[in-house]
Amino acid sequence: MKKLINDPADVLADALKGLAKAHPELDVDHEHRVIYRSEPKDQGKVALLSGGGSGHEPLHGGFVGLGMLDAACAGEMFTSPTPDQVVAATKAADRGAGVLHIVKNYTGDVMNFEMAAEIAAAESGVEVATVVVADDVAVQDSLYTAGRRGVGLTVLMEKIVGAAAEEGRDLAAVTALAEKLNERGRSMGMALTSCTVPAAGKPTFDLPEDEIEMGVGIHGEPGRKRVPLAPASEIATQLVEPILADRDFTGEPVIVMLNGMGGTPLSELHLMYGEVAELLEQAGVEVARTLVGDYITSLDMAGCSVTLLAADDEILRLWDAPVRTPGLRWLA
Amino acid sequence: MKKLINDPADVLADALKGLAKAHPELDVDHEHRVIYRSEPKDQGKVALLSGGGSGHEPLHGGFVGLGMLDAACAGEMFTSPTPDQVVAATKAADRGAGVLHIVKNYTGDVMNFEMAAEIAAAESGVEVATVVVADDVAVQDSLYTAGRRGVGLTVLMEKIVGAAAEEGRDLAAVTALAEKLNERGRSMGMALTSCTVPAAGKPTFDLPEDEIEMGVGIHGEPGRKRVPLAPASEIATQLVEPILADRDFTGEPVIVMLNGMGGTPLSELHLMYGEVAELLEQAGVEVARTLVGDYITSLDMAGCSVTLLAADDEILRLWDAPVRTPGLRWLA
Repeated sequence: MKKLINDPADVLADALKGLAKAHPELDVDHEHRVIYRSEPKDQGKVALLSGGGSGHEPLHGGFVGLGMLDAACAGEMFTSPTPDQVVAATKAADRGAGVLHIVKNYTGDVMNFEMAAEIAAAESGVEVATVVVADDVAVQDSLYTAGRRGVGLTVLMEKIVGAAAEEGRDLAAVTALAEKLNERGRSMGMALTSCTVPAAGKPTFDLPEDEIEMGVGIHGEPGRKRVPLAPASEIATQLVEPILADRDFTGEPVIVMLNGMGGTPLSELHLMYGEVAELLEQAGVEVARTLVGDYITSLDMAGCSVTLLAADDEILRLWDAPVRTPGLRWLA
Repeated sequence: MKKLINDPADVLADALKGLAKAHPELDVDHEHRVIYRSEPKDQGKVALLSGGGSGHEPLHGGFVGLGMLDAACAGEMFTSPTPDQVVAATKAADRGAGVLHIVKNYTGDVMNFEMAAEIAAAESGVEVATVVVADDVAVQDSLYTAGRRGVGLTVLMEKIVGAAAEEGRDLAAVTALAEKLNERGRSMGMALTSCTVPAAGKPTFDLPEDEIEMGVGIHGEPGRKRVPLAPASEIATQLVEPILADRDFTGEPVIVMLNGMGGTPLSELHLMYGEVAELLEQAGVEVARTLVGDYITSLDMAGCSVTLLAADDEILRLWDAPVRTPGLRWLA
């Protein structure tokens, strides 16, 4: 295992130390491993909290800031954050208008966030709502999930719902919007290689030099099937077809994310996006906005995923709203 | 070789096709492989043109846009752009106030940009000035370079000089600023693994599982020495010490870039930045601004580089100016 780390047991603590130094606009609670916006807190704004296992950076800590999350809990690598982390984050993030938990659908995450919501409500009266993101069309149930896994849609949801919260909507409205997005987003990913969790010291799974994993999970968990290594155009087809088979994306403007898994060069992601865009055009899907890059990763895994979100005027307006986080930022 | 590509001979053309689709705010001349800003051109603004071999994305095409480059020439992977590419870009980018060529110090790049400057001047009377970036302290001469190689400082220079050009400074002033930055910037990089050029189909160099290459070039060319794999804290020391030995960075605010080579997870880059920040603190260097992420890469190479730029009030102000490119963007 070749990594830029010290003791494998300290990777998360060391990485958070560096994140805090690189981003003075964030506050890091090193004891609870929670990343906060350090701007003065407006009372009355719904707070957005997400989190999950680490190793998917910039998700979630890199999406804390104006127009996106108020706080993010960082679990150990590929491990759910503990309830006490989430309780601390929920209490600290609340500005009196309640907290929305954005939770990727993994059994441990769902359980721990649920427990934390109950504890925070009981101890401090914080009103908590929850959306469980479940956009991965690859498999119905998985190694760590009952139902669909939550993957790329999480990035788009944090951006769009973040903008809505910034506008001052109340907890019920923000939650309803998150649920609406959940119905409208679908993803599918693939891996060229495994990833290596520092504490494990060896690749999570074995993948022969001439095979790829279609529908892989973001922790390297099995997907739909292993197929022979193929040209990008064929891989794009195998990613896009299952998404379009699952939901009709015609007739509405669509936001497309072509996401890198961590170890794939940007030139390959652009190349893949070209293939995906062509397939969507052929299928009569109107691409309104595009995001290409590493947004929800699996450590050093080579591969990519495609996320489609059926938008409308309101969703596009919220997508275009200003955002200022380490991982996503643009002008109005 | 496992890559998201079609025919290895078409990688660059296919990637530019995807880049154009993903970024409608850019114009791509596919014949000459030049990326332009598509906004209406103001007459009288000095145009900034850079370019070089591909495989270092987002450099340079991803830095075309408001507040940075006006155009970028994309050579084949790790191969200098041809003079006719640079001539076409120089003529098209000119707004009547001349063009600054920002060239990384590699023999082929320097030669082809120089030839193109002469042709463009002779054919169309375009006034061209050139800055040759040479910031890599690792080696004096290298496989492809007489003198120091041009690496990470190029990113910072394109940002800062881009802001100055946006303010309406003339070609002489913009060139003088670029030269000033050249004197004030230093870099050093390292590789955990090789990279693989698609057309070659195999790793550029062999690096045993227990060794790393200190001072590696961005094309995988040899650095200072191979050393045993070490903890991040020691690797940080081996990157920072040669930089500080080469120039005194105390007494002025410093911009620091911790850059990923393409295959390294963001969590490791943050971890490395934490180590680098601590060393700089111990050395009495005042960090004023920080940039952590993949900005000048070497395809799928795992590794990182450190760039320090001694700033002043003017440089910091230009650094903070708005920028809107695919690879770098922030609010004012």
